[in-house]
Amino acid sequence: MGIQKVILDKLGRTFQIRNKLLRQGLAECLGTLILVMFGCGSVAQYVLSGGSHGIFLAVNLAFGFAATLGILVCGQVSGGHLNPAVTFALCLLGREKWRKFPVYFLFQIIGSFFGAGIIFGMYYDALQRQYEKDHKLPLGIFATYPNEHLSTANGFFDQVIGTAALIVCILAIVDPYNNPIPQGLEAFTVGFTVLVIGLSMGLILAMQHGNYWFLVPIFAPFLGTIIGVIVYQLLVGWHTEGEAREKKKESEELNVKLNDIDSAAA
Amino acid sequence: MGIQKVILDKLGRTFQIRNKLLRQGLAECLGTLILVMFGCGSVAQYVLSGGSHGIFLAVNLAFGFAATLGILVCGQVSGGHLNPAVTFALCLLGREKWRKFPVYFLFQIIGSFFGAGIIFGMYYDALQRQYEKDHKLPLGIFATYPNEHLSTANGFFDQVIGTAALIVCILAIVDPYNNPIPQGLEAFTVGFTVLVIGLSMGLILAMQHGNYWFLVPIFAPFLGTIIGVIVYQLLVGWHTEGEAREKKKESEELNVKLNDIDSAAA
Amino acid sequence: MGIQKVILDKLGRTFQIRNKLLRQGLAECLGTLILVMFGCGSVAQYVLSGGSHGIFLAVNLAFGFAATLGILVCGQVSGGHLNPAVTFALCLLGREKWRKFPVYFLFQIIGSFFGAGIIFGMYYDALQRQYEKDHKLPLGIFATYPNEHLSTANGFFDQVIGTAALIVCILAIVDPYNNPIPQGLEAFTVGFTVLVIGLSMGLILAMQHGNYWFLVPIFAPFLGTIIGVIVYQLLVGWHTEGEAREKKKESEELNVKLNDIDSAAA
Amino acid sequence: MGIQKVILDKLGRTFQIRNKLLRQGLAECLGTLILVMFGCGSVAQYVLSGGSHGIFLAVNLAFGFAATLGILVCGQVSGGHLNPAVTFALCLLGREKWRKFPVYFLFQIIGSFFGAGIIFGMYYDALQRQYEKDHKLPLGIFATYPNEHLSTANGFFDQVIGTAALIVCILAIVDPYNNPIPQGLEAFTVGFTVLVIGLSMGLILAMQHGNYWFLVPIFAPFLGTIIGVIVYQLLVGWHTEGEAREKKKESEELNVKLNDIDSAAA
Repeated sequence: MGIQKVILDKLGRTFQIRNKLLRQGLAECLGTLILVMFGCGSVAQYVLSGGSHGIFLAVNLAFGFAATLGILVCGQVSGGHLNPAVTFALCLLGREKWRKFPVYFLFQIIGSFFGAGIIFGMYYDALQRQYEKDHKLPLGIFATYPNEHLSTANGFFDQVIGTAALIVCILAIVDPYNNPIPQGLEAFTVGFTVLVIGLSMGLILAMQHGNYWFLVPIFAPFLGTIIGVIVYQLLVGWHTEGEAREKKKESEELNVKLNDIDSAAA
Repeated sequence: MGIQKVILDKLGRTFQIRNKLLRQGLAECLGTLILVMFGCGSVAQYVLSGGSHGIFLAVNLAFGFAATLGILVCGQVSGGHLNPAVTFALCLLGREKWRKFPVYFLFQIIGSFFGAGIIFGMYYDALQRQYEKDHKLPLGIFATYPNEHLSTANGFFDQVIGTAALIVCILAIVDPYNNPIPQGLEAFTVGFTVLVIGLSMGLILAMQHGNYWFLVPIFAPFLGTIIGVIVYQLLVGWHTEGEAREKKKESEELNVKLNDIDSAAA
Repeated sequence: MGIQKVILDKLGRTFQIRNKLLRQGLAECLGTLILVMFGCGSVAQYVLSGGSHGIFLAVNLAFGFAATLGILVCGQVSGGHLNPAVTFALCLLGREKWRKFPVYFLFQIIGSFFGAGIIFGMYYDALQRQYEKDHKLPLGIFATYPNEHLSTANGFFDQVIGTAALIVCILAIVDPYNNPIPQGLEAFTVGFTVLVIGLSMGLILAMQHGNYWFLVPIFAPFLGTIIGVIVYQLLVGWHTEGEAREKKKESEELNVKLNDIDSAAA
Repeated sequence: MGIQKVILDKLGRTFQIRNKLLRQGLAECLGTLILVMFGCGSVAQYVLSGGSHGIFLAVNLAFGFAATLGILVCGQVSGGHLNPAVTFALCLLGREKWRKFPVYFLFQIIGSFFGAGIIFGMYYDALQRQYEKDHKLPLGIFATYPNEHLSTANGFFDQVIGTAALIVCILAIVDPYNNPIPQGLEAFTVGFTVLVIGLSMGLILAMQHGNYWFLVPIFAPFLGTIIGVIVYQLLVGWHTEGEAREKKKESEELNVKLNDIDSAAA
């Protein structure tokens, strides 16, 4: 194994990237690739099998656990946001620096395109067969188009609420003053969040992921993020934060007093 | 990021609420909102898609994991009861103070109304379409009406048993003398409990949640809570409690004896 | 809350049972009641709704997570066997005393009868309706009858294998020399085991649970237990056990030698 | 219990195998048997029940959790690879010795044959009935044949990608420099990975498992493994490895400097 070790060591040193932000971007790219590849793959299996190899519940489960796997793959390096809305929420609260936002956004889009491309390649034969039969491609696999009965106002409202619900749950999961789950289970909990949103707001989740490829509608998720941040902070976040700040202050004041007594005694 | 930090700090200090009970009520409100929003949302998706985007299993899964998420969001602040029956059971056993009960009850109802309202808004277009087609609204999304074949006596019995089963499982999960799961996994276990109850007593669970909006039938859940508390305490709770009390007493008596010997020796 | 505490304390002292084996039996009774109640309930919902409120997957999930909940409720007190085959396997390996076996067996049967009785009561109206329509009761809810095409030899073989598979997995989960999962997650892992067995050997699992009520066929599960114990011990158990024994012996010999050196030096 | 203990101790000493590699092979054999038995069993239940006792989602869930159980049963002894592709990936990265590869491969194949054989025996009656009706056996239960519309090039590409996706996720889960999950939960995470792959690339997963029995197509998984290893190492692995190496080097240099100062001072 001597030669193998030397080669592996050499490869490791050659391809190691030292710029931290670039490394985080690449990890985010791989994580988003995994989310989109498995997510779109399950939609493709559901649509192209004509229902025999998939039900809508399977699509929801795939998106949920794909999010879990995506976060596990890149979480230690980049935090595992996988979604510009999450990066935006954490920047808004001052937990991530704003210069991370464009980099993450870019690599998340690159990852999504690769993920969707892999599924296009894998199901190429089946897509061709479907096209020969129907003379149109089932593009709903890669992006969701609004239902014809859905008014623009209602569709916008749906996206805002769907993103706000996602952000409220994620903020609770990662809140440093409200740590409700054992360390290392965050990825699983986010997976369950994505699953539940898919189970109860299926159309909206799909539309939300549509923005990865066509960049429209882009404003609803950001508005939803802002609303989610405000709702969580107003009802839970600022109170637990304030309590932690006051406890810290009290213990500092106690220390000062004790020091005064000490110096008076000395 | 200097200005952002100042603004965030100012916002935090402005909106921080110092009254602990009010903070707990607000957290309980957000948790119940999440449970009802995701739960009703999955029923809406199931009913309004005509079965294509949901099956009854998906509704059970959504209610289960919605309970998990609701508890995670508010659990550290308010305990994450999300249900007057749970608050009532813990008050009965002296683990929560009775004055919490009306406050939690009130905020749980407010949260449920908001949760149901959000789903009404999200599915407004689809509901309108359904109404134009059938000339009646599928109100079963927001509350369950007893099946016409269900006798009142049987319906009452069902609700009592459903609530008792929920309470027995929750008491086992939170029993301080019978701590069977790693800390931080309580929310997931309660989620599985709600899932299993939905899988085996689906109609009853739905009716139980009906009481959030119309406050009838309100007596069955409380009777069920009392039965659940008695069954768990008789078969498990009082024995583990007694054992813990006796162990504590023995170690105290041993200390007393040792002290006697010490003082005799001195 | 003074009076409430006094009453609770008095109740606790009055109903506390000091006999450990009886306490374990009662806990086992409650755990088995929960398993059978939720399990049969899901079958009842599946059968009586005519498929609209249940699919076979939902029955498998309910049995799996019902096992998890049953174990969580009684596990700290009685070990959470819930099945005479598990008690038998642990007695065979000398990890439980043989005198526990008849007591656990008795209380497991009592718990199953109560669990099945509760479901009979809950679905009484629906069962009556079904009887009026078909002029026969769907007794498959409470016990499974062999499929008419299943030969007795094949049915016996199926039960032996189903039980052996369950026992191999449970032995791996509770093996003290092969502790693969964090403490406290055993109940969840057993739940997944029951789920997987239901997903791949559905008919057999149901027949296995039939023995709770009619006590036939009773020999297949015990033969299966013996086979499961032998397979696990031959392929994994005895090797890890032996390794642990040898490591212990080595460290003891080292201690003896060090003592010899010490005493020689002294 | 005296005699029982003596017998158990004697049995343990008689059947204990001291050769570590053989013990690992036997454990791997049992783990693969469990994976294939439960996996094929769920396909058999799905196919032979004509859909009434299984849906494709149930097959995906069974494969996922069967992988979890297989890893739990043998993981502490052999690492729980259950798949030649995983052993190959770990050998490539120098984390396992190459001489393990042929032994693991052999025992994995033996375990698969036994697992498939057990299911063949369990469903023998049902298979015979099916054969009498259709005059052909549903061999798709035990191995998957390429769909007639699938071109060879596309089928090869699918297998490469499916294996690469599996390997990327498994490498992230077991990466010593990127430990994202609490110890002991690896088996569950791999189970979710297998579930998600089944949900989004169902046909490919089945074909991949086909190679256990007929050893064709055998090249695609190995190519997929190499691609998976390269993708993970390029995007995440080598950077975290390099960072760990540099941190270690820095702390060593610091120690050297401190020693220099110490010796200079002395």
